[in-house]
Amino acid sequence: MLPVLVVHGGAGHVPEEYQQSVLAGVRAAVREGYAILQGQGSAMDAVVAAVTLLENNPSFNAGLGSVLNAKGDVEMDAIVMDGRDLTSGAVSAVKRLANPVQLARLVMDKTIHLCLTGEGANQFAREMGVPEVPEESLITDYSRMRWKKNLAPDANLVESLMGKMGTVGAVAVDAMGNIACATSTGGLPNKMEGRVGDTACIGCGGYADNKVGAASPTGHGEAIMKVVLARLILFHMEQGCSTEVAADKALAYMKERVGGVGGVVVVDPQGGWSARFSSRQMVWAAGQQNTLHFGLHAGEHFTQSTDDPN
Amino acid sequence: MLPVLVVHGGAGHVPEEYQQSVLAGVRAAVREGYAILQGQGSAMDAVVAAVTLLENNPSFNAGLGSVLNAKGDVEMDAIVMDGRDLTSGAVSAVKRLANPVQLARLVMDKTIHLCLTGEGANQFAREMGVPEVPEESLITDYSRMRWKKNLAPDANLVESLMGKMGTVGAVAVDAMGNIACATSTGGLPNKMEGRVGDTACIGCGGYADNKVGAASPTGHGEAIMKVVLARLILFHMEQGCSTEVAADKALAYMKERVGGVGGVVVVDPQGGWSARFSSRQMVWAAGQQNTLHFGLHAGEHFTQSTDDPN
Repeated sequence: MLPVLVVHGGAGHVPEEYQQSVLAGVRAAVREGYAILQGQGSAMDAVVAAVTLLENNPSFNAGLGSVLNAKGDVEMDAIVMDGRDLTSGAVSAVKRLANPVQLARLVMDKTIHLCLTGEGANQFAREMGVPEVPEESLITDYSRMRWKKNLAPDANLVESLMGKMGTVGAVAVDAMGNIACATSTGGLPNKMEGRVGDTACIGCGGYADNKVGAASPTGHGEAIMKVVLARLILFHMEQGCSTEVAADKALAYMKERVGGVGGVVVVDPQGGWSARFSSRQMVWAAGQQNTLHFGLHAGEHFTQSTDDPN
Repeated sequence: MLPVLVVHGGAGHVPEEYQQSVLAGVRAAVREGYAILQGQGSAMDAVVAAVTLLENNPSFNAGLGSVLNAKGDVEMDAIVMDGRDLTSGAVSAVKRLANPVQLARLVMDKTIHLCLTGEGANQFAREMGVPEVPEESLITDYSRMRWKKNLAPDANLVESLMGKMGTVGAVAVDAMGNIACATSTGGLPNKMEGRVGDTACIGCGGYADNKVGAASPTGHGEAIMKVVLARLILFHMEQGCSTEVAADKALAYMKERVGGVGGVVVVDPQGGWSARFSSRQMVWAAGQQNTLHFGLHAGEHFTQSTDDPN
């Protein structure tokens, strides 16, 4: 059943005119990451490659296409975690970077810390030779339109978040049985300057442990944080739940206890996997045994060969 | 058995000449917070008051007396969490504030977010009318001396952290049975600019749930993050463990799995409490049934009346 890779492109509700592009986006991300796994690459390399591709795709709220904060700026959060030794790297509120997930990986690989924030994270990027990109190069017309709309005094930011695909993430188990996760986001539309969501918080926006599995969530960040969603799912798996039951239990708890909806992709060490959500939709795709699985609406599960280029 | 308040002033090793002052500091913090609980005040008010007093005390690594980062600046993290509805507020890498824990509470009370970082957090402080203090007013001669010493190329920052009391925190259950926690820190000595530790991450540097209890950790932040320590302790309590067994299991796991040491104060809804640590020492104090408990070395447990002014 190994290797396996599962990605998501955010929980919420995708307007019909964007559905084909987000489905194409997650399929492309799985093909990219799954090819690495098939070539005996590591789970970490696979999740970072898949998330990088989604960050570069303007259809998702991460990297290019990120939502704008209240000031009209892009501030992004990202995390990676290595299930071998529970080490992790994260960045929060970083600006002017095309691929925050790659900086999160550098935090993990090149520092003694697990998280760098704001200007300190950007300073570290410069030290690592990561090029800064112009702010404008990350902003799409769609992001700017939503930002303006959300400036209205009666705008509901959480509802707005659920009105377009969001956060991107990936979980994988490689042929060696090593497990990793990665998550990246532009956060909540029109958020306050400096707002940090679940994605930069280990256990909330991602968790990976070779002994248990990995989870990458998406949805209302503040609700995900209150229940420490990724770690909660892995606790259920430690108690014997399958990836699907663990995800459904944790999502139901989040809805009942704090009124939050979202979704998650999950893997276990044997290659079991799930893509589950309590939101109206979550765009997801998975690669396993040369088959590409994908879906968007609840209950949807399409398959094609991973060799199919579309 | 209610109300109860337990505070810590950091895990590590206190040089003998500082032992009396840190013990006096945590006793004073408990007297301050416990009086609030005795007057029918809330657990949240009690933990914030206790942590505020510890931030104002130069003997601890939080607020005044915080360690300096690599650049010689003070950057602080803090969190509060309300066990009634799992809401929380946190700040990371904030500068020039006397009481980060109070800003964390404002994030919880006055925004739709759970965490603000860096300049955005300071901007929010200005909007709330929180006065900025001169950077120099937070720095002690001792902090500057350690910073200079740690600039040596062979300095071990984690060992340095363990060489002085650190992070401060508190957990409480009030007479109504409501549970809260608060944690505040200057972080790791000579940390990189923008480094965020466990304290600002919900589930890592603190967690509170009226149905289970609360925990406030201290120690090597990166290790605490890898195991999401506070939430882990509450999971063990959900499985039926006492506060003491849950804390010891989680600390032993942190040592074995990621090689980290630290300590924690824990309460349960019935007023059970523990102060446990895997470090050489942790200064702690607790107030319950008009008795003030305190200790520093392993196995130490002194008591006096909460009316005793010293």
